Amino acid sequence: MTDQATVTDDRAGEDYGLSHEMLQAVEDALDAYNLQGVEKLVVPLHSADMADLLEQLHPDDRRTVVGIIRPHLIEDAEVLTYLDEDVRDQVMELLAPEEIATALAELDSDDALGVIEDMEDEDREKVLEALPTAARVFVEEGLNFPEYSAGRLMQREVVAVPMFWTVGKTIDWLRETEDLPDDFYMIFAVDPMYRPIGSLHLARILRSKRPVKVRSIVSEDVRTIPAEMDQEEVAFLFRQYSMVSAPVVDKSGRLLGVITVDDIVDVIDEEAEDDLLKLGGVREDDLYRAVVDTTRSRFSWLGVNLITAIVASLVIAIFQGTIDQIVALAVLMPIVASMGGNAGTQSLTVAVRGLAMRELTPDTAPRVLWKEVLVGCLNGLIFAVIAGPIAALWFGDWMIGVVIGSAMIITLLAAGFSGTVIPLVLERLKVDPAVASGVFLTTVTDVIGFFAFLGLAAWILI
Amino acid sequence: MTDQATVTDDRAGEDYGLSHEMLQAVEDALDAYNLQGVEKLVVPLHSADMADLLEQLHPDDRRTVVGIIRPHLIEDAEVLTYLDEDVRDQVMELLAPEEIATALAELDSDDALGVIEDMEDEDREKVLEALPTAARVFVEEGLNFPEYSAGRLMQREVVAVPMFWTVGKTIDWLRETEDLPDDFYMIFAVDPMYRPIGSLHLARILRSKRPVKVRSIVSEDVRTIPAEMDQEEVAFLFRQYSMVSAPVVDKSGRLLGVITVDDIVDVIDEEAEDDLLKLGGVREDDLYRAVVDTTRSRFSWLGVNLITAIVASLVIAIFQGTIDQIVALAVLMPIVASMGGNAGTQSLTVAVRGLAMRELTPDTAPRVLWKEVLVGCLNGLIFAVIAGPIAALWFGDWMIGVVIGSAMIITLLAAGFSGTVIPLVLERLKVDPAVASGVFLTTVTDVIGFFAFLGLAAWILI
Repeated sequence: MTDQATVTDDRAGEDYGLSHEMLQAVEDALDAYNLQGVEKLVVPLHSADMADLLEQLHPDDRRTVVGIIRPHLIEDAEVLTYLDEDVRDQVMELLAPEEIATALAELDSDDALGVIEDMEDEDREKVLEALPTAARVFVEEGLNFPEYSAGRLMQREVVAVPMFWTVGKTIDWLRETEDLPDDFYMIFAVDPMYRPIGSLHLARILRSKRPVKVRSIVSEDVRTIPAEMDQEEVAFLFRQYSMVSAPVVDKSGRLLGVITVDDIVDVIDEEAEDDLLKLGGVREDDLYRAVVDTTRSRFSWLGVNLITAIVASLVIAIFQGTIDQIVALAVLMPIVASMGGNAGTQSLTVAVRGLAMRELTPDTAPRVLWKEVLVGCLNGLIFAVIAGPIAALWFGDWMIGVVIGSAMIITLLAAGFSGTVIPLVLERLKVDPAVASGVFLTTVTDVIGFFAFLGLAAWILI
Repeated sequence: MTDQATVTDDRAGEDYGLSHEMLQAVEDALDAYNLQGVEKLVVPLHSADMADLLEQLHPDDRRTVVGIIRPHLIEDAEVLTYLDEDVRDQVMELLAPEEIATALAELDSDDALGVIEDMEDEDREKVLEALPTAARVFVEEGLNFPEYSAGRLMQREVVAVPMFWTVGKTIDWLRETEDLPDDFYMIFAVDPMYRPIGSLHLARILRSKRPVKVRSIVSEDVRTIPAEMDQEEVAFLFRQYSMVSAPVVDKSGRLLGVITVDDIVDVIDEEAEDDLLKLGGVREDDLYRAVVDTTRSRFSWLGVNLITAIVASLVIAIFQGTIDQIVALAVLMPIVASMGGNAGTQSLTVAVRGLAMRELTPDTAPRVLWKEVLVGCLNGLIFAVIAGPIAALWFGDWMIGVVIGSAMIITLLAAGFSGTVIPLVLERLKVDPAVASGVFLTTVTDVIGFFAFLGLAAWILI
């Protein structure tokens, strides 16, 4: 955990964060080659705001600023932890491995690990070599845990006492021991094998008399987290049980470290971002990425979409003859497909969110599916009543209204069904439903939409 | 803050949360009319798991279970705080206002407020009347703050001491005072006007000697939060500065309460859900909502989509004559529109997320926009090269390839541009970009896609 915001500027009540004026002032100073002015502006900023500033500057300006504040960066490496990964890479390229190591040695073990794990293998080796032994051991041990696991997330600095100590002894020990974490919110009671068997809020210690035994005030309902647990699982636990901190243990149950709720905030942010971006057909946040890399990462999704669009076109091609006779069909068919796609996306979004929040489970799935089909059916009926007459009046043919209305009902019903079933099936197949659902869904709704509309038209109108 | 998970079952290492077996066992006991069995299964559950159970049961079963565990529900109201709003309404309907009041009186002020603020006005009045005076005052004061404000979020129970106290006096006072919150992580130092002027980690107190003055160990960089501040703003602050807790103050700067990072977890979840659902065209999480209500809430977005789809159709109608001559155009035109829609959604998703994370600002907008246009242009070129030959071979006409290729470039370029500009403009107009962007975007990409493709076809092919 980091300390409560250490803020050097005084703008309470105003807009927080990096101000537009500050960014402007730095850019002006850069344009005027006033390097000392830049330093005076940038160095007093909170690390988080400094990170924002570096992110928002043009890459050339960023390089200049990093050059100017280099000694400060090495001294206060927290800036690095706040930087977006792409920008951090660029900043770290400007520093020597020894400088990075000096900087990281000052950070908490989890923060240092967070920076090092994102580095290229070669750079990582160099930095690891330059780290002081104690920090290197922590980081190397951390790297042995799988990516996105509790072991990567936890802070190694943890405070533990034996059950038989008294409050007085605990307080004396806390006062005398130099090498404790800066902040901690919970003390763990451990058995002789160093396994956590109880947790103790600091408030509980403060409010108990000195002769009271740790054993008698400890809370024994400790939910330990295996170091291999996936971070999404950890986040689920913290949310599910409104936890504030939890001990991380190795396979034999020994206390390794602690995860606190503020670490979980980042995980939740990442998870939410992941789902949002994947549903939008983007691999990862690429706001600061170069044009070519962005183009490449978006290409794959668009490529898949091209294939599905061609599949939908093949359906239209079947009915080319029908369209040739009634060109009005070409005008109206995108309406049906578009409504199907949107209704399906609604069901899909609710299902993907439900899966992420573990509210959509095999137990609730039948009920949710039935409901989505009913909703699709109802909205299909409503929009049949609306779109039917519009189409009929537009082309002066009541049967066209009947065709588009019936196609609307079929498509929206299918959209509700497939919008729910597709993510469920993907989840069962261990494919991330957020990333792949959209492709399948639009293929299904397009194919069914075009097929229903043009098929009914061929059958009824010709 | 709630205490660390109090878990009564022992399934460490296994799947956490409510198990499928438990749900099944409860349903079996219900089917066998074994009410005592249901009670034995349900009552020992953690409140969070009990809430999940109630959510996942069929509404009829839910009613039965609430009837069975009613005395427990009143004693341990925490279950209510974990319930989804729709399900909570149904559960609370089964309880008398006095029972709800008794239950809520046991909760922390912020949790009680969280339940009461969601109630209908009439029910709320009844419950408020039945609350003990102290709790009622806190809740009523809370209700006076705007919805989704810091005042609604904060916990009123807060620990504050004067600057001139010593560590010893503080500890003695903490030990002797009965009426303190269950858990707290930070003590605030206040001036004679009760304005927070410093914050004190409990660890700091524990590790200092008794004669040390609060003044000398306090951290004076306190970022106070005005009670009227919007909760999204509060969440931004906590994330930006990795804060753990912050004092909430009234207009004259007096300490009113405290917000801790675990309250922020819920806000972040809500925010993320909001953006995700709105981009998917859903108003709010409706997994547990009735069919008719869900149909109604989704209707409006589909209605807007119908209008935009008709606008796109009007563009096609302009070129009816062209399609009549070359029916292949009807087959190919959805491909262009679909690619435009998807590429636009990619840009849109990144922009909406960037706005939410405050990374896309007026300062960075020009750079981001320029990049998105370039990415659109590049991917347009690539897909022109891919789709052009496919279309040409399919319909045996090289000029059709040229037409679809050129239309692809124009559409993807426009998609990158509008996917970024639309949310920026909406944000400037104070309209939530997540909810409205999609409608405008697909209209723009459809219209441009159809216009470019059919227009070029009319010009080149005929």
